[in-house]
Amino acid sequence: MEIDIKKPILDRNERLAQDNRKLFDEKGVFVLDLMASPGAGKTSTILATIAALRDRYNIAVIEGDIASKVDAEKISAHGIPAVQINTGGACHLESDMIQRAIEALDLDELDLVIIENVGNLVCPTEFYLGEHAKVMILSVPEGHDKPYKYPNIFQIAEAVILNKYDTLSVFDFDEAEFRAVVTSLNHAAPMFPMSATKGEGVDAWAEWLTARIEAVKSSS
Amino acid sequence: MEIDIKKPILDRNERLAQDNRKLFDEKGVFVLDLMASPGAGKTSTILATIAALRDRYNIAVIEGDIASKVDAEKISAHGIPAVQINTGGACHLESDMIQRAIEALDLDELDLVIIENVGNLVCPTEFYLGEHAKVMILSVPEGHDKPYKYPNIFQIAEAVILNKYDTLSVFDFDEAEFRAVVTSLNHAAPMFPMSATKGEGVDAWAEWLTARIEAVKSSS
Repeated sequence: MEIDIKKPILDRNERLAQDNRKLFDEKGVFVLDLMASPGAGKTSTILATIAALRDRYNIAVIEGDIASKVDAEKISAHGIPAVQINTGGACHLESDMIQRAIEALDLDELDLVIIENVGNLVCPTEFYLGEHAKVMILSVPEGHDKPYKYPNIFQIAEAVILNKYDTLSVFDFDEAEFRAVVTSLNHAAPMFPMSATKGEGVDAWAEWLTARIEAVKSSS
Repeated sequence: MEIDIKKPILDRNERLAQDNRKLFDEKGVFVLDLMASPGAGKTSTILATIAALRDRYNIAVIEGDIASKVDAEKISAHGIPAVQINTGGACHLESDMIQRAIEALDLDELDLVIIENVGNLVCPTEFYLGEHAKVMILSVPEGHDKPYKYPNIFQIAEAVILNKYDTLSVFDFDEAEFRAVVTSLNHAAPMFPMSATKGEGVDAWAEWLTARIEAVKSSS
């Protein structure tokens, strides 16, 4: 006999995720789940997003990592509330972790919560956390062939950030092929070339995000 | 009641891995399990390793990916036997996949089999495949803070390749801090700075690998 342990885990995760989502909607807080490989620039993108939107919105960040609190410390240093989750080995966040993390946040005071998922192009795609949108970052040094190898994350992302765009000339990255493959996997997702650490290309991304934040605020 | 499904899966994996290892030892074939993030340069490192050692050794490659066969095609184009494993979603290779892959290889004719694990700093660390050594690649664009966040892979690696070393000046990568943290996690592992696509720094790595290959050949 084989026991399918995956389904009940996902069922429980889904149930708690729906609870999370209900709460986010009631409070009018837009929640973004940001996914990428290790070192693609998730934290830098969050910092660039904070810089672009902090005058307009109250923002908090939930940081997911296997270990360490370096990312939460980076965010806190900018005066933004940050909760660090250490998964202790798990390669993704689950909705119960988010449920516990938001207990440390005052949702009544917030407009935007950014969840930085564990650095990984596989596991985070399978777990709904209650977020309004999953967005992924691919960085130029990773190579334009990644959508062939990790199609699922490109399929479920509502937007694709192409980060470290300023290093395009340093790497053998075929942007036209990358765009063609991503489009074949996902017609709907806009792509935002960005250099998060230099603040380049952040405006278009911030505009997209603003529209999504406003949609949630206006329906709460 | 909670059912621990992880332990029996790992037990079965371990048993088959030991079978694999016994076969590799009997045949005198050194097997390397190469782990890294997506886009860190696993395939490029394999190609550079092939270029350095193909005159001396017979080499084959087992490519692990969620989807696609682009990597196996890249290797085959160089006249090296390559078997592609598609995990269909799983974020790591397991020993039964290796068992099936080696059925397609003539181990009697081989000295070195390189396994390219799925691009991921987490899951591949948990599964023994029967390999003689797990080696990891970190690429400079990923950032020097990765050992804080993914300590386990740095702890179990028998060597660390620091790839895309030629881009050190492009990124804010603190090599001294990186080396200090890696050493604190793993005193034994040598570090090989490399630019695999340019063939720089490959000699020291090839020398280390040659010593390991010879050790297995001489004891078979």
